[in-house]
Amino acid sequence: MARWAVRIEYDGRPFVGWQRQITGLSVQQVLEEAASRLAAGRIVTSITAGRTDAGVHATGQVAHLDFPAETRLTASSVRDALNFHMKPHPVAVLQAVPVDTEWNARFSANRRSYRYRIVNRRGRLALDEGRVWLVKRTLDADAMALAAGHLLGRHDFTSFRASACQAKSPLRTLDRLTVTRLGEDIVIEAEARSFLHHQVRNMVGTLKLVGERTWSPERVGEALRACDRRAAGPTAPPDGLYLTGVGYDPDPFNTESLPS
Amino acid sequence: MARWAVRIEYDGRPFVGWQRQITGLSVQQVLEEAASRLAAGRIVTSITAGRTDAGVHATGQVAHLDFPAETRLTASSVRDALNFHMKPHPVAVLQAVPVDTEWNARFSANRRSYRYRIVNRRGRLALDEGRVWLVKRTLDADAMALAAGHLLGRHDFTSFRASACQAKSPLRTLDRLTVTRLGEDIVIEAEARSFLHHQVRNMVGTLKLVGERTWSPERVGEALRACDRRAAGPTAPPDGLYLTGVGYDPDPFNTESLPS
Repeated sequence: MARWAVRIEYDGRPFVGWQRQITGLSVQQVLEEAASRLAAGRIVTSITAGRTDAGVHATGQVAHLDFPAETRLTASSVRDALNFHMKPHPVAVLQAVPVDTEWNARFSANRRSYRYRIVNRRGRLALDEGRVWLVKRTLDADAMALAAGHLLGRHDFTSFRASACQAKSPLRTLDRLTVTRLGEDIVIEAEARSFLHHQVRNMVGTLKLVGERTWSPERVGEALRACDRRAAGPTAPPDGLYLTGVGYDPDPFNTESLPS
Repeated sequence: MARWAVRIEYDGRPFVGWQRQITGLSVQQVLEEAASRLAAGRIVTSITAGRTDAGVHATGQVAHLDFPAETRLTASSVRDALNFHMKPHPVAVLQAVPVDTEWNARFSANRRSYRYRIVNRRGRLALDEGRVWLVKRTLDADAMALAAGHLLGRHDFTSFRASACQAKSPLRTLDRLTVTRLGEDIVIEAEARSFLHHQVRNMVGTLKLVGERTWSPERVGEALRACDRRAAGPTAPPDGLYLTGVGYDPDPFNTESLPS
């Protein structure tokens, strides 16, 4: 067996999410079917660092693929052939590197980075429909940034966890949560070793309540301490969410200079 | 007659360009037909600051619309009603303001700003297909920035002018042409009172030759002085081009605080 790590970009709009489902096309299915074409039709399975939901995008998703040992592969042939076979689906392999079979895209990962994009204006979206969250009420990004500070560190994030979340523990360490406004664009960056299901979208949906002055920044800390999903705000839509990067130590993708 | 100025965003992909053509749907047609719905079906005509080509996008296009005098309009009703009637086309009015009939979106404009986006990587595009120019050969953005300096100022831009260009004079004053790399993204910003037809795309297509080291930066200055379209590089694709803003003095859009 030959294991390959791939760094992937995708537009989440046409997919039911990362994971295979009988209800529709998934990113996983597109990737695995393309990989199978490289392996003379034999089944190739993948494991991913982050199983993104329907409508969620990625600029730096990572997965590994297990090819039959006899498949002849090079870094550029894996990248280019996967890209060829994934057409016309909006999924692209940015980089492919061989890894040993101890390495695992999910379990070797020690960092996940997400970006959430809000466009704060009255006019509807023409360029970024499905790619950002359009919020028409004026948001106070400074208040949102202040509120975000209450969520940093190691906490029980039950209040921000989807009921369907399968993680054993609700404890997570949030290392970064910044809110930045540039004109009508508000960008929220979140970073942690791992996140609970819907955690980023639930944090964003709660910060939005602060931004529109429905909530005080302090109330976000109270919602966290309540350890009750009903204490926090609603789930922000998937449209604005991007998995931007996955961290490994050492980073298998560092072996090539960019652009490769 | 009541004249209104509108600031517009659009995704250029599905259109034949700004201007009405019998070959397909234009941004102008979408806007004017929506405006006509606000005027009880009477014809409303528009004049724009920049007649963008097929596939070219805008984040800050400006046009004016002439409504029959008796139409009852407010800034928010014009914006929201136009947005409603333009659905599902990817055209959005960001702001609408009443202007007097001396004011003209085209002739009152004293500044046009364009952005050109290149993604410089081997992997194909998933998120930004049709929205950026994918260049697979590694580009030296510093060399491109150096070359751009040769084009600044007042010159005869015949070498960068489309043969179909209808401007009376090839003289233009280029006030800004910057090239910036951020990771795999290269952004070129251009600013002038006005541009010749295809001027930005022809400058970008030429700078790309410098970036890939096919040309020296100095050769761009020589191409300019040749005053011959054949001396410069090819036309960059429309995909990466955005009209980002149009300047007026005074700016009619400054009357509202943002987001309005």
